Amino acid sequence: MSSKKKVGILGASGYTGADAVRLLARHPNAEITALTANTHAGKAMGDVFPHFFMLDLPKLVEWEKVDWTSLDAVFCGLPHGTTQEIIAAVLKDNPKIKVLDMSADFRLRNKDTYAQWYGHEHRALELQGEAVYGLTELYREKITSARLVACPGCYPTAALLALVPLAKAKLIDVDDIVIDAKSGVTGAGRGLKQNTLFSEAGEGLSPYSVGTHRHAPEIEQEIGVAAGSAVTINFTPHLIPMARGELCTSYVKLNGATPDDLRTALEKAYANEPFVHVARKGVLPQTQNVRGSNYVQIGVIADRIKNRAIVISTLDNLVKGSAGQAIQNMNLMFGLPETAGLEQIALFP
Amino acid sequence: MSSKKKVGILGASGYTGADAVRLLARHPNAEITALTANTHAGKAMGDVFPHFFMLDLPKLVEWEKVDWTSLDAVFCGLPHGTTQEIIAAVLKDNPKIKVLDMSADFRLRNKDTYAQWYGHEHRALELQGEAVYGLTELYREKITSARLVACPGCYPTAALLALVPLAKAKLIDVDDIVIDAKSGVTGAGRGLKQNTLFSEAGEGLSPYSVGTHRHAPEIEQEIGVAAGSAVTINFTPHLIPMARGELCTSYVKLNGATPDDLRTALEKAYANEPFVHVARKGVLPQTQNVRGSNYVQIGVIADRIKNRAIVISTLDNLVKGSAGQAIQNMNLMFGLPETAGLEQIALFP
Amino acid sequence: MSSKKKVGILGASGYTGADAVRLLARHPNAEITALTANTHAGKAMGDVFPHFFMLDLPKLVEWEKVDWTSLDAVFCGLPHGTTQEIIAAVLKDNPKIKVLDMSADFRLRNKDTYAQWYGHEHRALELQGEAVYGLTELYREKITSARLVACPGCYPTAALLALVPLAKAKLIDVDDIVIDAKSGVTGAGRGLKQNTLFSEAGEGLSPYSVGTHRHAPEIEQEIGVAAGSAVTINFTPHLIPMARGELCTSYVKLNGATPDDLRTALEKAYANEPFVHVARKGVLPQTQNVRGSNYVQIGVIADRIKNRAIVISTLDNLVKGSAGQAIQNMNLMFGLPETAGLEQIALFP
Amino acid sequence: MSSKKKVGILGASGYTGADAVRLLARHPNAEITALTANTHAGKAMGDVFPHFFMLDLPKLVEWEKVDWTSLDAVFCGLPHGTTQEIIAAVLKDNPKIKVLDMSADFRLRNKDTYAQWYGHEHRALELQGEAVYGLTELYREKITSARLVACPGCYPTAALLALVPLAKAKLIDVDDIVIDAKSGVTGAGRGLKQNTLFSEAGEGLSPYSVGTHRHAPEIEQEIGVAAGSAVTINFTPHLIPMARGELCTSYVKLNGATPDDLRTALEKAYANEPFVHVARKGVLPQTQNVRGSNYVQIGVIADRIKNRAIVISTLDNLVKGSAGQAIQNMNLMFGLPETAGLEQIALFP
Repeated sequence: MSSKKKVGILGASGYTGADAVRLLARHPNAEITALTANTHAGKAMGDVFPHFFMLDLPKLVEWEKVDWTSLDAVFCGLPHGTTQEIIAAVLKDNPKIKVLDMSADFRLRNKDTYAQWYGHEHRALELQGEAVYGLTELYREKITSARLVACPGCYPTAALLALVPLAKAKLIDVDDIVIDAKSGVTGAGRGLKQNTLFSEAGEGLSPYSVGTHRHAPEIEQEIGVAAGSAVTINFTPHLIPMARGELCTSYVKLNGATPDDLRTALEKAYANEPFVHVARKGVLPQTQNVRGSNYVQIGVIADRIKNRAIVISTLDNLVKGSAGQAIQNMNLMFGLPETAGLEQIALFP
Repeated sequence: MSSKKKVGILGASGYTGADAVRLLARHPNAEITALTANTHAGKAMGDVFPHFFMLDLPKLVEWEKVDWTSLDAVFCGLPHGTTQEIIAAVLKDNPKIKVLDMSADFRLRNKDTYAQWYGHEHRALELQGEAVYGLTELYREKITSARLVACPGCYPTAALLALVPLAKAKLIDVDDIVIDAKSGVTGAGRGLKQNTLFSEAGEGLSPYSVGTHRHAPEIEQEIGVAAGSAVTINFTPHLIPMARGELCTSYVKLNGATPDDLRTALEKAYANEPFVHVARKGVLPQTQNVRGSNYVQIGVIADRIKNRAIVISTLDNLVKGSAGQAIQNMNLMFGLPETAGLEQIALFP
Repeated sequence: MSSKKKVGILGASGYTGADAVRLLARHPNAEITALTANTHAGKAMGDVFPHFFMLDLPKLVEWEKVDWTSLDAVFCGLPHGTTQEIIAAVLKDNPKIKVLDMSADFRLRNKDTYAQWYGHEHRALELQGEAVYGLTELYREKITSARLVACPGCYPTAALLALVPLAKAKLIDVDDIVIDAKSGVTGAGRGLKQNTLFSEAGEGLSPYSVGTHRHAPEIEQEIGVAAGSAVTINFTPHLIPMARGELCTSYVKLNGATPDDLRTALEKAYANEPFVHVARKGVLPQTQNVRGSNYVQIGVIADRIKNRAIVISTLDNLVKGSAGQAIQNMNLMFGLPETAGLEQIALFP
Repeated sequence: MSSKKKVGILGASGYTGADAVRLLARHPNAEITALTANTHAGKAMGDVFPHFFMLDLPKLVEWEKVDWTSLDAVFCGLPHGTTQEIIAAVLKDNPKIKVLDMSADFRLRNKDTYAQWYGHEHRALELQGEAVYGLTELYREKITSARLVACPGCYPTAALLALVPLAKAKLIDVDDIVIDAKSGVTGAGRGLKQNTLFSEAGEGLSPYSVGTHRHAPEIEQEIGVAAGSAVTINFTPHLIPMARGELCTSYVKLNGATPDDLRTALEKAYANEPFVHVARKGVLPQTQNVRGSNYVQIGVIADRIKNRAIVISTLDNLVKGSAGQAIQNMNLMFGLPETAGLEQIALFP
């Protein structure tokens, strides 16, 4: 027991915080020793999330009350904006703590892009410089030795795993990418909003934030890195009546390559990856296959329009799209087996 | 009462047949006098669809048992293939009957295209020549004087209402159209299939028939007519966990036009249409707005990629996408008010 | 047009208000001339409920701004408590206006019971005395000549239509009634609550307000009237992952009668009712049969325990359970056909 | 690796079989070495259940092709009736194999009761005599030394865990028990039935098999054992629009005890149980709390009718209600830690 890493979760009353608890509570090498939720401080976690009735968890406290020096790692599921200041304070208290940020605060390397999309100057610029973008499969080496990891958004994880190897290999025209994205309702968080009420979101389908979703610049940043040039993409999200799951249908123009070439490139890129699977020809990914799991499934289909292809990728937005990937990164940072605590199979049906 | 049109429904045990019953049973100028369903012949309609408990409907019979000469119109909700032979037989019995075919059998004007997509030679070619494509807003005049109307598929109705005015006005490049389509599960019909079980389709999202869906050639046929040239489009359908509703997100390349130009063109095209509404700038269509109704909502949004736009259209696949549009056409064919029996507002929530 | 009744809706931004709009906008004898929603005053109704995009409705205003003397009837979908004062004020302005109250404020005839369950003294006692309980099938005569009708809650409507004829006929022991009730999520209203978020209520089932639900005293009041004695019942509600629909499974002890006697008594009671249907032996009611409609379906099943039976009743909580029944009452109060504007068939699937 | 128990699954193409695979594939002490599914023989498991894409599983074969002598245990997810003959054959091949039957074939100890409810004489009576009823918490000792365990149905597990301790302690009147039961759609299996299609079961609620459900005699058998007398109960199941989860609302008459006495009795009975939790006063169980997990939650609430109480119990029908409990029993039979492979926390949201 004493060899377990002591971890805390900032913002444990949200969905990403709760999924971190679900996974960490059964992680063989971790022990949850602090949970914060400032508006629920003083409550038992089981009062805020009754599905934890069988766990013996620390009480929710205000983040200022935690002794950060006693922790090995902290997961942060706070809203953007406040995150950067709180993480700066935590790192000041304990400069050795490993930080797994699941918020958006440290994902954008360019401070102007950050300011443009988030509406204010970044308030912890020196940390933004230090932060590693936490898409495990792309930045494994850097993550392993990082102190602060900015885990990517759920949509960027799904889109980038499908597109980065293709952009790197120059198989697609990066100036003509359309990403039609579909997400379950947990993607909108646990905050009270009219459009995420059961009676509003159920039995219906809504596009939202078209052209304005804050995950677009993250995707552009990383495709730009892969392609070696700045890119603008189309990213069109839709709200789907399911709690979990995300699927990106990416429409790409080919640079002379065939759809089979794309699949081969993806297979090569992910040949040794434990969580990313490329579907064989003819198999279409679906969110049901990854529900509740850290797995990603990617498929390539020929387009009827010449010189075009369709790349479909799917994951669980709260696991590989958030808490799961954060734990995967934590495993790397502590030298643990990368898959520790993350091998649950999708809950289907 | 005696002045009501006597109508029959072929294939009343399917979802499109049932929705035709739902609407026709309350239509002020129609009277349902025959219902066929060969596998359920002899049963009461209320045993096959218990939500009709309050109606006094004719018993289900085999189609060969109906006296077609006593009817003014027939709606056909049979599977493709058998439809063409049965309709030929019905028209032989009663050459004056108005036929509203909701199947796919008479939608494709080119016999080779039909054979290619449906796997067999058409068996009623002379009728295919006579059939009018029943997208009311595009072919109102021809429908008014037609005997046999081939009501379009649900996806083509949604896609074409969004795209045909733009293609006609040369505002978009018809060789670069991506239609990412999403449908509720009733689109797959009432037949027993594993992938439409609640436990399989619920809480998940699946692309299907990518590149092979039979609604693609219909869409190409009509965009081709509008553009004056043969076109190939991308059409990628997804199964969404909701019973009704369809939404097409169409990604288009602009011929120098702006997204506002597109919206203006659509507003002009549908200015006097009772059922097609163009959303004002900033408003995104959603399936919830049209559930159970004959209305269509279309919106235009600027793409972040230069010289591109997004056109979103939504309808109820069983109403404007099938039975409702058929009744709209019947109204025209009988000189009734076009909106008779069809003005129900969406059932939301 | 001039002969249409001018109606207003207080609290049009809630679900019951919206369903009143959906139905009244297509009512042949009504015209919506005022809509109030104090927190949304100044907005178009189509901004608050986008599924009304095809309607030309009055803007939302504060209730104090309405000229009540210009209206023939008002529907009230306000929260309990405020309702009684606002209705008193409206009736002061226009003593001839017909009031269809869909809130709970005037349903309980006993002022002590009201105070006990709602936590404060009633503030319009003289009106409570005047109010008629608006369960149409039980109080049709009184409603016809009433000015103020207190439309019952959704659960009481379902439970009482099943049980009152049996209590009246002394076929059941009214001191041993268990009502296991199940409701769709719209029953909880449009207010923002965590437990009605899609991600919380979906794919799950929760009992709630067990032993404390405010519909219990209404049910007891009316069964008491039918039985001629005060009664206490068990009423246990459950939240079901569907938007609309309500089903009460009532477990009753028989006074020597058989289940068939119960069914016969119900058939007799509702023989001439347009909206209440008793299912024939062996048919089980289900919410799908009444979704979006004003119909009620009731069935009786033998219990395996001797001398007991199960009575199942179902309705749409927003229609016969609220706005639809209010319109049914309005029709009576204006001498219109009772079914005017209310004959829509259930939307299935 | 070599010390892992070799297990096979009969009927792996059904939902209970698949959930056994999901859990056993990650069980630290088990290795899946045979999967049978006669109608799918020759297919890869990943073709039948695509969410297993990341597993390396044996191909599906016909049960006759398996070398049963090479296995340590077999889980049986076959339909009732065929099960008894196949298990008899398997045990003939390998008399030492441990059999975890998840079907109904060996649950009823009385052969006449079996014949009455299943419509035919039992065809392996000698085995029925040997079989132990596999409700772990009630029969742990017997299960530990058993060869053939008849795992209970999902409804009986939920109902009996709530009621047996109360019946044993004579706190309730066993002749007046009403069990209003609600189940997710997976309870109906993966077979193709019209009423379990998404478009039929979604957004609606249906009672079914009222008075005729085959889980009733199982419940009566075990309450009878606890009470020391034959009992007849009311058991009324309802189909709920969710994939997984089951909740029984049991209405009981008290023998002078208080609701708090009931809770205390349950707490005492389950004080040392790893999977059964009694909710503290005021907390209502809900299916969301146990989705995908082996946990059970039970709560007691006072009834407003004097001398009555409500006991609510919930579980996941495919886990503690089937495959999970079977694995829990296997753990006992092999002397493994009872919780091995079963500690997943509910997937919420």
